[in-house]
Amino acid sequence: MATKNADWEVLPGGVTAPRGFRAAGVVAQVRKKGRRDLALIYSEVPAVAAGVFTKNQVKAAPVLVTKENLAGGKAQAVVVNSGIANTCTGPQGFADAWQMARWTGDALGIPPNHVVVASTGVIGVPLPMEKIKKGIQAAVAELSPEGGSAAAEAIMTTDTFPKEYALRFSLGKEKAVIGGIAKGAGMIHPDMATMLAFLTTDVVISQNALKSALRWAVDRSFNAVTVDGDTSTNDMVVVLANGLAGNDPLEEGSSEYLLFREALLQVCTELAKMIARDGEGATKFLEVRVKGAVSEEGARQIARTVARSNLVKTAIFGEDPNWGRIIAAAGYSGVSFDPEMVDIYLGELQVAGKGTGLDFDEEEARSVLAEREVVITIDLNQGDAEGVAWSCDLSYDYVRINAHYRT
Amino acid sequence: MATKNADWEVLPGGVTAPRGFRAAGVVAQVRKKGRRDLALIYSEVPAVAAGVFTKNQVKAAPVLVTKENLAGGKAQAVVVNSGIANTCTGPQGFADAWQMARWTGDALGIPPNHVVVASTGVIGVPLPMEKIKKGIQAAVAELSPEGGSAAAEAIMTTDTFPKEYALRFSLGKEKAVIGGIAKGAGMIHPDMATMLAFLTTDVVISQNALKSALRWAVDRSFNAVTVDGDTSTNDMVVVLANGLAGNDPLEEGSSEYLLFREALLQVCTELAKMIARDGEGATKFLEVRVKGAVSEEGARQIARTVARSNLVKTAIFGEDPNWGRIIAAAGYSGVSFDPEMVDIYLGELQVAGKGTGLDFDEEEARSVLAEREVVITIDLNQGDAEGVAWSCDLSYDYVRINAHYRT
Repeated sequence: MATKNADWEVLPGGVTAPRGFRAAGVVAQVRKKGRRDLALIYSEVPAVAAGVFTKNQVKAAPVLVTKENLAGGKAQAVVVNSGIANTCTGPQGFADAWQMARWTGDALGIPPNHVVVASTGVIGVPLPMEKIKKGIQAAVAELSPEGGSAAAEAIMTTDTFPKEYALRFSLGKEKAVIGGIAKGAGMIHPDMATMLAFLTTDVVISQNALKSALRWAVDRSFNAVTVDGDTSTNDMVVVLANGLAGNDPLEEGSSEYLLFREALLQVCTELAKMIARDGEGATKFLEVRVKGAVSEEGARQIARTVARSNLVKTAIFGEDPNWGRIIAAAGYSGVSFDPEMVDIYLGELQVAGKGTGLDFDEEEARSVLAEREVVITIDLNQGDAEGVAWSCDLSYDYVRINAHYRT
Repeated sequence: MATKNADWEVLPGGVTAPRGFRAAGVVAQVRKKGRRDLALIYSEVPAVAAGVFTKNQVKAAPVLVTKENLAGGKAQAVVVNSGIANTCTGPQGFADAWQMARWTGDALGIPPNHVVVASTGVIGVPLPMEKIKKGIQAAVAELSPEGGSAAAEAIMTTDTFPKEYALRFSLGKEKAVIGGIAKGAGMIHPDMATMLAFLTTDVVISQNALKSALRWAVDRSFNAVTVDGDTSTNDMVVVLANGLAGNDPLEEGSSEYLLFREALLQVCTELAKMIARDGEGATKFLEVRVKGAVSEEGARQIARTVARSNLVKTAIFGEDPNWGRIIAAAGYSGVSFDPEMVDIYLGELQVAGKGTGLDFDEEEARSVLAEREVVITIDLNQGDAEGVAWSCDLSYDYVRINAHYRT
């Protein structure tokens, strides 16, 4: 696989690719079908940790517990169940999320407040705590340096494939690794990264620097993904840095910090694109690029608005070069621009110039849209800033999947 | 049909129900199928006029022309074509929209700047002006006091039924009438009222008072409708008041002004609900009521966010009582509330209390959702303000219709 930097190397193993991490994914029978549904990630030594959480006001109990635990800036394990979200479950749900941390901490011999807890699945249903308890015990027993893929599988809900990625990069004379797993599928929309992602790395880094790098990378990756505009109650991106690479500690602003941040962005971007590619019912991957904007933030906002438009997404599904919907969506993005300056491209084919339709070749346009990956470029011709968003088409299967999710 | 006020009386005739209005709907062959596609509304005397327009930055040429014409506060005719939106058509589009006003004014013997111009349909395609010219001539020839229904038909695009409504109400000793036609279907989302609606009335009213009343009524009716969250480039709601009822002039704040405003809201509400009911691919009508809010605006905002959620709309289509999606959507509405105070009802059945799932009867919930009309009530239990939004479910047919709209 090609990478942007010559010294980057894609590795197998996901979250277990960096030194000192082990993982497991087991069948705890929270989900109906006997699929893996409980994941555990463990670092041999305590790690510096940071997280970014859903902005939804309705926050799942595990989100509240993890925010509190990460306030100390340290973590050594991550426990995640799929199938039930432990959201809107009242005081019992909060107690259950704490209990997951406690059982995990006890079984691993680490403080319970060094455990990151996450859940994903149906809202409003209590967790089957006996099954969770047995699942945690089984996962601790199965922890392995090859367990990354099993963990990636265990956090899936309607995802059709597990999502993992790992990258080795140079940090001065040292080599360091960042790995990650993610789950997405539905209810995917910024802000924030409305999905689960767990990242591991062996770099030595201060907590503040890790936090800044994570926020920066998430804004440019997970927050650029939109599937249906619904933001979830359970989302989090958490990174654990256990320091086993032995590099000089990374401090914000240093050149090595910037190398780390770029590599972190690469891992987040690859995972984010996998989430868009696996949007519920997706038949096509959609990338929306906005160029010539006055600000990067504005460019990203327009890109996301176009990428989330039901009308754009159904047109992509139908392979219909209906660029009017693209400029209309840009127009209600809330970002100011001059419609009469806008050029629009489907792939390489320009379909509108200065806000007006061009007499383009319909057949060529349709052949661009017949591809599995479609790139829409919107050039505002008003500045130098750029932004991107990823999404997928809106198909019959999106409706089918979501009409009967609980049942 | 029941009305809220004892002295309200629903009339046939739509925009031609008030005194002195005539209308027509003809086949100009802008659309493919030989359906009516050009509407004309005419008042025998010049009318006071006001409009509310799309907030999309990309505005169709007819929107710009009509805004300019209505700046004078007077209008005597409305000309509308369906099939082609005359948006993103450059300077030619602007000239074409002016030409529509000029031809209409010439044929009727009124100033062209007393003509409201509107278009709806595909973006980026020029209007076939010869057909438009002949259509206008035919429409002028066919103007009739019974032409309201033909006009309602002629403004349809993917609408499955024409939308018209008229109401007679008391204004002191006088009787006055308000009529209206609307089109909706896709790309329906506030703000503003993302559709076309044309209202006629015979009241005597100042332009400022008419403008205030329209804005107030639109906020509580058309702006409460959401089908897919996409706002269009062409939307407008325009009202013409020709004064033939002979009442004492209505001034803002007077008790008679308030009677008019309530009646106007009623007409707008009925048309708005028809639009939601006829959302593209709709199998069910969805009303979301928010109670116990701190502000009316906040209540409306939450209601609209829930009503536009793809995940809520697919669950309603699938008749799945997945209330977690309802509270999750409320949570990302941007309006602050305490999730642990929230009660949720499907019809009369309470499914969540204090933000936590109740052990409700699944069969009863499903039977509520099996109805053609579904009411979701969210009680925030934090204040006295209320708000409502209307939408429809998200079905396979929404995808089918929008995947191939242009073709």
